[in-house]
Amino acid sequence: MDVTKTLVAHILASRLDDVPQDVRHEAKRALLNIVGCTLGGAEEAATEIAISALGPFSGPANAAVIGRRERFDPLLAALFNGIASHVHDYDDTLPKNYIHASSPVASALLSYASVNRVSGEDFLNAFILGFEVVSRIGNATYPAHYDAGWHSTGSIGVFGAAVAIGKLLGLDAERMTYAIGLAATQAAGIREMFGSMGKGFHPGRSAQSGYMAALLAQKGFTSGRFPLEAPRGFAAVTAARYDLAKVTDGLGTDFDLRENTYKPFACGIVIHPTIDACSQLRAAHGFDAADVVAVELRVAPLVKDLCNKKEIAAGLEGKFSIYHAAAIGLGRGKGGLGEFTDAAVNDPALKRIRLLTEATGDPAVSEDGVKVAVRLADGRALDLHLEASLGNLKRPLSDAQLEDKFRDQAGVLSPARIEAAMAACWGIDGLADAGDLVAAAVPA
Amino acid sequence: MDVTKTLVAHILASRLDDVPQDVRHEAKRALLNIVGCTLGGAEEAATEIAISALGPFSGPANAAVIGRRERFDPLLAALFNGIASHVHDYDDTLPKNYIHASSPVASALLSYASVNRVSGEDFLNAFILGFEVVSRIGNATYPAHYDAGWHSTGSIGVFGAAVAIGKLLGLDAERMTYAIGLAATQAAGIREMFGSMGKGFHPGRSAQSGYMAALLAQKGFTSGRFPLEAPRGFAAVTAARYDLAKVTDGLGTDFDLRENTYKPFACGIVIHPTIDACSQLRAAHGFDAADVVAVELRVAPLVKDLCNKKEIAAGLEGKFSIYHAAAIGLGRGKGGLGEFTDAAVNDPALKRIRLLTEATGDPAVSEDGVKVAVRLADGRALDLHLEASLGNLKRPLSDAQLEDKFRDQAGVLSPARIEAAMAACWGIDGLADAGDLVAAAVPA
Repeated sequence: MDVTKTLVAHILASRLDDVPQDVRHEAKRALLNIVGCTLGGAEEAATEIAISALGPFSGPANAAVIGRRERFDPLLAALFNGIASHVHDYDDTLPKNYIHASSPVASALLSYASVNRVSGEDFLNAFILGFEVVSRIGNATYPAHYDAGWHSTGSIGVFGAAVAIGKLLGLDAERMTYAIGLAATQAAGIREMFGSMGKGFHPGRSAQSGYMAALLAQKGFTSGRFPLEAPRGFAAVTAARYDLAKVTDGLGTDFDLRENTYKPFACGIVIHPTIDACSQLRAAHGFDAADVVAVELRVAPLVKDLCNKKEIAAGLEGKFSIYHAAAIGLGRGKGGLGEFTDAAVNDPALKRIRLLTEATGDPAVSEDGVKVAVRLADGRALDLHLEASLGNLKRPLSDAQLEDKFRDQAGVLSPARIEAAMAACWGIDGLADAGDLVAAAVPA
Repeated sequence: MDVTKTLVAHILASRLDDVPQDVRHEAKRALLNIVGCTLGGAEEAATEIAISALGPFSGPANAAVIGRRERFDPLLAALFNGIASHVHDYDDTLPKNYIHASSPVASALLSYASVNRVSGEDFLNAFILGFEVVSRIGNATYPAHYDAGWHSTGSIGVFGAAVAIGKLLGLDAERMTYAIGLAATQAAGIREMFGSMGKGFHPGRSAQSGYMAALLAQKGFTSGRFPLEAPRGFAAVTAARYDLAKVTDGLGTDFDLRENTYKPFACGIVIHPTIDACSQLRAAHGFDAADVVAVELRVAPLVKDLCNKKEIAAGLEGKFSIYHAAAIGLGRGKGGLGEFTDAAVNDPALKRIRLLTEATGDPAVSEDGVKVAVRLADGRALDLHLEASLGNLKRPLSDAQLEDKFRDQAGVLSPARIEAAMAACWGIDGLADAGDLVAAAVPA
């Protein structure tokens, strides 16, 4: 099997014209979501620290970082974009392989487009290519690769960045092979980093390493010729079992972008159903936080085990508290970044609901569902049984909901720039210069 | 077991004064050898291409690259040093785990010392620390890690660079842990790159990534706290079997530098015995290449299988030809870089010997030995049975032989600088500024 060769031929031949309209639209949704997430992380501690540590080593500073005023060389800008985009764990997820594929690909491309003139069509095509390559290599090595302890968003994301940048550089087949090879030999990122800044570092470093692989390949820096399929290639080295046919089967016909999902809430996915159900009750019945006098949740036993903390003080703890989830749903009707700050967790109105909420593990409730019963001060008793949470494949976020999520994260931009940046995402394939998107997504 | 914590405590406490004199001397030999190898690779294609591709992205260009006139930011200089040092596969080897430990460590340190004032004592101590950390993590995961297809010089080398730079930065225990963690999560490099420029890329990238890990850690960029030993840490993710006690047992007492070896010849190790034996015959009997009329070799069957090519035209092929090995030993008495060029392989005097040489696989001969029988034009019949080849642990290269090897590779420097650079290696612990070594090892 000649996996790399087949993949390279597809990459070289690919054109946006051959991508179905629904996939293009889904790519724009992914792009809008990842730009929003990058804005949301642009001033987080991990991003600030990385910039303070590595910024002094920047080359000619002509590349923009989404959501920031400083400029850096494009390799460093790709790193910083990637860290910011994933730091809240709020970016898109492929349920079939748990990869956040947009981050490493878009982080490299947005940096590239800020220093090189790229048409919006070429940009969108490169993004789709990179995304699909990541997901396909993910499928081929899932679950063994992930189960072994690799954080595939980093260890596989690097291929997407290399392919996307390589496509824009116009690499020939030989050099595209080297780009993939030099990506394979930089593939890294272990799950022991979860819970630390190291997790967000992974897509950033893979964006930077993939970009670098493409630059080296462009000048003729050679690699092994069978980086995916060789006995000592990526798949064999990092996955006990794999099926590389999944890299090439249906190339250009089947698109995993159709199975991408977007988080509506900035927290662990297991508390999403509770936020969703409580927000629905609030919207349907129009009560205030102060009206709530009793809350009973029935959740999957695993969810209760994972998220059973009521006495919390830090925003980060709120991301894994089923009680805080009920409080923000009932009290605010949403679960954006602002609901997981230290201030939100200590907001008296939310804290009161959190402390009066009771939760029971119930095997009859799925991990993607919840049963909520609420009593209000005026005596009303409300209840809701949610079976599929907002954001999963059965209930995708609408375009309007993605826009709300974007706005919620884009506080570093002026309102006019927020709207301009979203318009540039929706209209990316009509832009003569994709750099206009980047220009809109940095503060004035 | 608290491997990372124990290792970090040792790193923080380590002082050159506590290192035995024989280990210090071996460290100087390793340093001299790796600086020589870096000089030898400074103008190789892989180095030139990497510089042309990435040089334009350099930050403030204040760091020197061994053997070159240009300057780059120190992270890039570490990368270029590393590529140059390993490109000829001529650097030191630890027979117990096949790691070339000096390259990633020295490549980062030499770059660091060219932009920061570091005493020679601190430099040497950091080098020894980094070397030992690499070898110990190598021992703990050998052979499973290497057998899986990792090129440990890259995938483990990164720890040595992080620790060595972290030591010079004066990181506290928490930040040294992060440096090791951020190294672990950048660990990469697969054996499918062997035979391409990707192989030399590995120690370069690991030098750069380890250096970067230390810089990020210094500013407080966090990582997982158990990067070596956690269930999803480096050892479990990259090695089917491992014994992390080998990382910490005998720390500060047992030094793997004592088991480091240096290649006398710039080629595959299996043809070393033939070059060595033929060079000995030439030195003992003082004949010319033209005097040789017949050569018979008896080598281990595996050696004949691997190196049985007689009709060759490229220098690279000569590195794995037992016939070329006989020709250069008998014709020139050495096997330096100059004996593995295209010109050497096509040199009529050498080619004549190569074509008349016969080789037989003989199970009675070890892979580290050879039996050579030579007939000269004046009728003399010479023979030699070599049982242990020069450069292995039983017959280490002498300091003088290491100096000859250094001179052979240092053609980019003037004779005065060659001697000054060697003197700086031997006297490194007496230098007030280790940067003086770097200054001597670049062209005027």
